[in-house]
Amino acid sequence: MRRVLIANRGEIALRAMRACRKAGLESVAVHSEADAASPHIWAADAAVCIGPPAAAMSYLREDVLIDVARRTGCDAVYPGYGFLSERAGFAERCRSAGLTFIGPSPEVIAAMGDKAEARRRVAALGVPVVPGSTGTFRTVDEAVEAARSVGFPLLMKATAGGGGRGMRVARSVEEFRTLLPQAVAEAEAAFGNGEVYLERFFDRVRHVEVQVFGDRHGTARHVWERDCSVQRRHQKLVEEAPSPALDPAARRAMCEAAAAIVEATGYEGAGTVEFIVDENSGRFFFIEMNTRIQVEHPVTEMLTGHDLVVEQLRVAAGERLSIPAAGLAPPPGHVIEWRICAEDPARNFQPSPGRITTWRPPKASWLRFDSHVYPGYAVPPHYDSMIGKLIVRGDSRSQCLARSAAALDQFLVEGIATTIPFHRDLARHPDFVAARVHTRWIEDAAGSMPCPAKAA
Amino acid sequence: MRRVLIANRGEIALRAMRACRKAGLESVAVHSEADAASPHIWAADAAVCIGPPAAAMSYLREDVLIDVARRTGCDAVYPGYGFLSERAGFAERCRSAGLTFIGPSPEVIAAMGDKAEARRRVAALGVPVVPGSTGTFRTVDEAVEAARSVGFPLLMKATAGGGGRGMRVARSVEEFRTLLPQAVAEAEAAFGNGEVYLERFFDRVRHVEVQVFGDRHGTARHVWERDCSVQRRHQKLVEEAPSPALDPAARRAMCEAAAAIVEATGYEGAGTVEFIVDENSGRFFFIEMNTRIQVEHPVTEMLTGHDLVVEQLRVAAGERLSIPAAGLAPPPGHVIEWRICAEDPARNFQPSPGRITTWRPPKASWLRFDSHVYPGYAVPPHYDSMIGKLIVRGDSRSQCLARSAAALDQFLVEGIATTIPFHRDLARHPDFVAARVHTRWIEDAAGSMPCPAKAA
Repeated sequence: MRRVLIANRGEIALRAMRACRKAGLESVAVHSEADAASPHIWAADAAVCIGPPAAAMSYLREDVLIDVARRTGCDAVYPGYGFLSERAGFAERCRSAGLTFIGPSPEVIAAMGDKAEARRRVAALGVPVVPGSTGTFRTVDEAVEAARSVGFPLLMKATAGGGGRGMRVARSVEEFRTLLPQAVAEAEAAFGNGEVYLERFFDRVRHVEVQVFGDRHGTARHVWERDCSVQRRHQKLVEEAPSPALDPAARRAMCEAAAAIVEATGYEGAGTVEFIVDENSGRFFFIEMNTRIQVEHPVTEMLTGHDLVVEQLRVAAGERLSIPAAGLAPPPGHVIEWRICAEDPARNFQPSPGRITTWRPPKASWLRFDSHVYPGYAVPPHYDSMIGKLIVRGDSRSQCLARSAAALDQFLVEGIATTIPFHRDLARHPDFVAARVHTRWIEDAAGSMPCPAKAA
Repeated sequence: MRRVLIANRGEIALRAMRACRKAGLESVAVHSEADAASPHIWAADAAVCIGPPAAAMSYLREDVLIDVARRTGCDAVYPGYGFLSERAGFAERCRSAGLTFIGPSPEVIAAMGDKAEARRRVAALGVPVVPGSTGTFRTVDEAVEAARSVGFPLLMKATAGGGGRGMRVARSVEEFRTLLPQAVAEAEAAFGNGEVYLERFFDRVRHVEVQVFGDRHGTARHVWERDCSVQRRHQKLVEEAPSPALDPAARRAMCEAAAAIVEATGYEGAGTVEFIVDENSGRFFFIEMNTRIQVEHPVTEMLTGHDLVVEQLRVAAGERLSIPAAGLAPPPGHVIEWRICAEDPARNFQPSPGRITTWRPPKASWLRFDSHVYPGYAVPPHYDSMIGKLIVRGDSRSQCLARSAAALDQFLVEGIATTIPFHRDLARHPDFVAARVHTRWIEDAAGSMPCPAKAA
């Protein structure tokens, strides 16, 4: 491996280019016409414009990306997160073109990307999975039958999907009959695949995920967990590590279960095994695996001091994992990541693209700020609204929270609305400070959240 | 050498960072507050804001730059052109701080930067110098005496200066007495040194310079000449190679004279030896040496295929020059560089800072475009107005001109005025096409130049 096409944009493209340099690799940027002023163009060794703003015409054009990779002398493709990162077909196309896809094999992406198949595989290893359906349904009656055996309330999820699209909660058979067609239609529209699977729905759970790695020499490791329970409409807003919800025994059990999944699937590269933790019983259940790097990977990096993207590059080049057999020692301290989005919390988190006139992120030895934004940058309306990730480290969770509040207070942005005011309040909210949150807490607590009202 | 502080901005900072990568070195960017949206920040491995917009408060702060170099773990400093590139004191400060200044020694910078001293050294080698004064003047009468022995018309030039500041032409003793105080005052204001030296003034000369290199092992080489006769108020607008004014014998004589200067001065790194060529006699005379990389170095790179900035880095690291003893063969073909500036040719080349709304530079296998500008970039009013260099190659001068005209025609910029319309006309002007130009041709031909009037 010598030269890597970075098939992405924004902060993760920059992040990947930095890792390439660290690993002694060249990088090639691609960008849409809307991203012609994007810093990843300058951070790369070469850059190619690949089409109009719409992602379907640019960042999702598999044929164009493979063509650019070939023409610019790349021998590998880094997908990042989102876009083509979990498309088995793209990984397969890369392989056929003689390019190293930096991620697991197409077969593993396909297997783990099929949520029902993933559940089957994981359950076979003795890892607890959320009670759920095991197959697909030919008729509505078959689906109702399956729903009854899973039990209510239940969640409908797109087999091919992610990010909350195609999801519905049904609390009774009647509701299920009404919502199923909506879930199928949304899954069909979002992912080109209307298949839906069913899963028992827990009202109050935490979302905890384990960072894992595998290499082609059969080594499987975990790099501890991240707690991503603060979500809004199934979108993560804040992530932290270690999880305040796990005791040492539960942490070790969950992390080892995740590593066992990596080992059993012959998984190569970085991945994340997602679990829910039931608030009442404290038990954890596998929900799905993401076969790519996560947005929140810096939480783990800042806690462990281990560069996960460089590790991805090394593993893709055929090297052995650099994580020792005994694993990394449980790291001391606490890290929280705050996703900064160009959204207006005072207007129901409506996207607020436009030109940033003032941009002064905080600076401190205990924080890291990953972003592709600069003063004068115009946030395009075409893509994800995330414009930065503020990652704060403390010796304890309370120090981390105090530092976060201070850093968020200092963060000055003018020209567009951002989620910073929301985070400022969140960092001081008694429930969050006491770690009394669950995945639907933001929606439930809307009334008690001062932030949306105070955001202006 | 492992990590290089790039003590500059704009296209040359980007250019230097690319060379660092090619040479396997890390780079650190510095930027003023006005350059917070500048691509060199993203092209580097790290970046530090060094102060307010005014260059005196940022890019010229020797103490700050050395402090940043130390704090960021740099072991070398690349000065580029302009700013601190020809300050012997800065080179000395770098040396004292244990940093490699990428350029000649402070002693050589000081000697060649003193124009009278440089003339003395060069004359001693038997290289023709323009008849001129040999010392400084204590009284006006002493100066008049010297002026009489140089002969009229004569040119007053700042000993410490460059870029046309402090320059005056006197055609008689009376005029000399009037203009001398102005030249002294301007030199004092611009360079903190009011010393002026005198030089015979030729009405119609070409400006031809030779790219040279030396290493610490005593090797001295030239990399052929560039013709920079198209100037406006002593500022180069267009540069080309080979010079249309030199026959093969004159070219070889001039280039060898330049290499002899390098050898005799123990010169290390890249430099340029500037000559004027008298239109009437065809004779050349040394005028001065620039102890740094030139804006127009890509002309030589595109003609010879040799990367001059990588060569600078290699030489600074103590390696031997990679230019063979026999020199590079006289390269075939022709190259012209067009300096694209944010200036309005229709308004006497008045600077036109502001936001660039449309930016579509031409693309072709036979051109190179060095620039730090992107769509949406705001040209700051604080620095040099150059926003790009269009370098075009052809098998012959006429092909090079035809390609240049086509490339300039395609070049679309909106939001600010640029010198592109001027260059479009220049590329087709009969005098320029016939290579019938001299250093004051733009001023003399103002009436016959359609460009300023047509620029709108």
